[in-house]
Amino acid sequence: MLGGESKERAIHSSKLLYLLLITSISLNLYSFSSLLPFSSTPEPGWTAPASTEAEAVAAIQCSGHGRAYVDGIYVGGVPVCECNTCYGGSDCSEISPDCPADADSGDPLFLEPYWMREAAGSAVVVAGWHRMSYRINNDAAAISAELVKQIRRLHSAVGNAITDGRFILFGAGSTQLLNAAVHALSPDDPLSPPAKVLASVPYYPVYEMGTTFFNDRENRWGGTTSTWANKSDSSAAGEFIEFVTSPNNPDGSLKRPVLNVSSVITDHAYFWPHFTEIPAPGDEDLMVFTLSKLSGHAGSRFGWALVKDKKVYDKMSKYIMLNLFSVSRDTQLRALKLIKVIVDGSKVGGKDIFEFGYSTMNDRWRRLNDVVSKSNRFSLQSLSPQFCTYFQTIRDPSPAYAWLKCEREEDEDCAASLKAEGIMSRGGATYKTDGRYARLSLIKTQDDFEQLLQHMVALVSKEGGAQVI
Amino acid sequence: MLGGESKERAIHSSKLLYLLLITSISLNLYSFSSLLPFSSTPEPGWTAPASTEAEAVAAIQCSGHGRAYVDGIYVGGVPVCECNTCYGGSDCSEISPDCPADADSGDPLFLEPYWMREAAGSAVVVAGWHRMSYRINNDAAAISAELVKQIRRLHSAVGNAITDGRFILFGAGSTQLLNAAVHALSPDDPLSPPAKVLASVPYYPVYEMGTTFFNDRENRWGGTTSTWANKSDSSAAGEFIEFVTSPNNPDGSLKRPVLNVSSVITDHAYFWPHFTEIPAPGDEDLMVFTLSKLSGHAGSRFGWALVKDKKVYDKMSKYIMLNLFSVSRDTQLRALKLIKVIVDGSKVGGKDIFEFGYSTMNDRWRRLNDVVSKSNRFSLQSLSPQFCTYFQTIRDPSPAYAWLKCEREEDEDCAASLKAEGIMSRGGATYKTDGRYARLSLIKTQDDFEQLLQHMVALVSKEGGAQVI
Repeated sequence: MLGGESKERAIHSSKLLYLLLITSISLNLYSFSSLLPFSSTPEPGWTAPASTEAEAVAAIQCSGHGRAYVDGIYVGGVPVCECNTCYGGSDCSEISPDCPADADSGDPLFLEPYWMREAAGSAVVVAGWHRMSYRINNDAAAISAELVKQIRRLHSAVGNAITDGRFILFGAGSTQLLNAAVHALSPDDPLSPPAKVLASVPYYPVYEMGTTFFNDRENRWGGTTSTWANKSDSSAAGEFIEFVTSPNNPDGSLKRPVLNVSSVITDHAYFWPHFTEIPAPGDEDLMVFTLSKLSGHAGSRFGWALVKDKKVYDKMSKYIMLNLFSVSRDTQLRALKLIKVIVDGSKVGGKDIFEFGYSTMNDRWRRLNDVVSKSNRFSLQSLSPQFCTYFQTIRDPSPAYAWLKCEREEDEDCAASLKAEGIMSRGGATYKTDGRYARLSLIKTQDDFEQLLQHMVALVSKEGGAQVI
Repeated sequence: MLGGESKERAIHSSKLLYLLLITSISLNLYSFSSLLPFSSTPEPGWTAPASTEAEAVAAIQCSGHGRAYVDGIYVGGVPVCECNTCYGGSDCSEISPDCPADADSGDPLFLEPYWMREAAGSAVVVAGWHRMSYRINNDAAAISAELVKQIRRLHSAVGNAITDGRFILFGAGSTQLLNAAVHALSPDDPLSPPAKVLASVPYYPVYEMGTTFFNDRENRWGGTTSTWANKSDSSAAGEFIEFVTSPNNPDGSLKRPVLNVSSVITDHAYFWPHFTEIPAPGDEDLMVFTLSKLSGHAGSRFGWALVKDKKVYDKMSKYIMLNLFSVSRDTQLRALKLIKVIVDGSKVGGKDIFEFGYSTMNDRWRRLNDVVSKSNRFSLQSLSPQFCTYFQTIRDPSPAYAWLKCEREEDEDCAASLKAEGIMSRGGATYKTDGRYARLSLIKTQDDFEQLLQHMVALVSKEGGAQVI
């Protein structure tokens, strides 16, 4: 018989042995299962390395003027900070003196802080075997049914488009869908004259660039709508395809077709409460939207079209199919997560991306307006407060772009004059209109906007010889 | 003075209070920080919800005949199993009787088990704010420098392409790059006759479908190379663009250009050790590769081109730019992770995807060959063992597709005869050749292959009146 202490020791030893045995069995099972080629369920904890990596990279400090990415350039085992314009140094803390303000591109980084705040809800883990197939549920168009459902919920929550009785089509960005739409609306009959593709000035130049570059036998760029609006014989000139951008890029005005033609492509890229009032849901035959200006994810290249006519939808689908088969599943997965966060957060205090987007854009517009209103040299497009069905209130303007006019006679090339003063813009000529205008992007990072404002303040101050702010 | 028990209780209470206080402070800090709009570093643990979700979905049991995805259709709070062909039921355990074997599409799911096994290494976490910009490091082409580096490492490790002195261009799948290449190699001069786009039979039909559908003024489909090979006056017929697919889809043979023309597009989709020996690195002027047939991620839509000529590269870049601006950052991030796993695992025992891919494909080819060799009704393309510079040994064949010939006089339409016996294939007419041929895909799931083999066994057994296996 064993004494008390010995007994305890024996129990302890046997417990230890048991534990070792269990550990050993688990380890063996682990090694064994890792050798099995067709194990259909991965080991628990398989997401840990990716999570650890992502959190480590997110914790890299870039002084609030940049960020590091997991797929950035690695130096010394960690990815480098990628700094905002005019910032440099290993942690983006150094501002370069005399750096021009870059208000050129429509890069929607104003929403980046929203997604950093919503980090936990908006992250996705992509498994190595995630949707490898060409198809989804044996459908070659490979359109995620859940994503379609969320897009319909989104338009219904925002009230900016009617989705009932419309086909939904995905593209790798809205640009691709716009090209697909031009092709689909062009005549099928090779003996028909090519359709003329038109837009109203000032217009987004990519419509013309795409139509001209792809050089489709079935259509050609036809210039501006004003050329045809007053011609009584326009009906004899063959078919027309009119681009309508609403709100318009660059000037933010809500637009309607100018010509009474059957083929209209409505580009609703900016038709979100960030940028404009929503007077009523879009109800056009062919509407195109993009994630880029909704969530700010320009880099994801995701757009969708709402199409009434089955024949047009089929031809657009064939275009997408022969161009890229279908939109990347990685992109669709991410778009699903982001749109879910947006819809679930809409009208929830502090969670609503449109509240966030609107207040940011309105703040920028107000501050720029304050400066420009003190100037005789510059003026801005006139936008007035309007009732918005989304916010259920009259809202002040918050356009994506300032459409600046240089009022002085010598400033015929407004963009050049701005450039000489250290402000990068896009001149009126780009939008096929008077060079006295220039587009200033207000949707970039806060740093970009502050630099633009500083430069504008300095410029306007020079007019009166005193500081305006 | 307190008694022992009371003292212990008091200590316990104060500990509890302290704990509550700490918890409360943490919660307050958390709420406070979650209200901060411009917090540039997310809270630690932000990846946890996405990880939990991904692991929970990966653990859903689909009997080894399907899998659930995080973006699947949710029923009762969990995504449903998406079953392999011929399997059904909530856990994919039910096999449908008399289900035809589907050997039609080139869906590369044979590599799915590899990625399930490499789960921990191949997962990626995509943060909500990951690469929202149109640009990467201010470059509008937005090509990840790290991904370019890994692609060069990959070709060097596999020895299947020379990347030195080549520009690298990304596309949303190789199809898009093939279209871009046709456009880029077509004449710039509008007065030149359109270039004729050609391929050698049997050829992948998408070349012709794309060229015809996009209907570019600068080129048109010109038919098969054999039409022009024997014409002495072909040089007077204008410019030619020749597609060369090597190894060829459908028959797996390594190919070279037939015509002596300057513009050749080499489609190297299948030029990986899974499917063919690598006799020497590809050194052509314009080579196109795709992730789809390398890693099996057809759904990610990622391809790349290696281009020697700067002018051709520039025109292809412009095509991609006006088509979709740049390839989705979500796709680029995933491609980077997958290619890293491939390169780091190459020639590492049990880790090498090419070992895995080759042994799977070779096993399928051998087993199908065993059956067909007992038949008088069918034959397969003849492929012989060849030295492979990657494996440094003579390897048996392992083609992606079986190019089956129906030998009986009455089987003029081989695909139709197979269909009548429950086998879905792609007939010779699709590849612009004799209908006596049909392509059987060997790269789909193991289930698909087993069903194909069972049907072939049954079919061949009928010939002799006895079981062949």
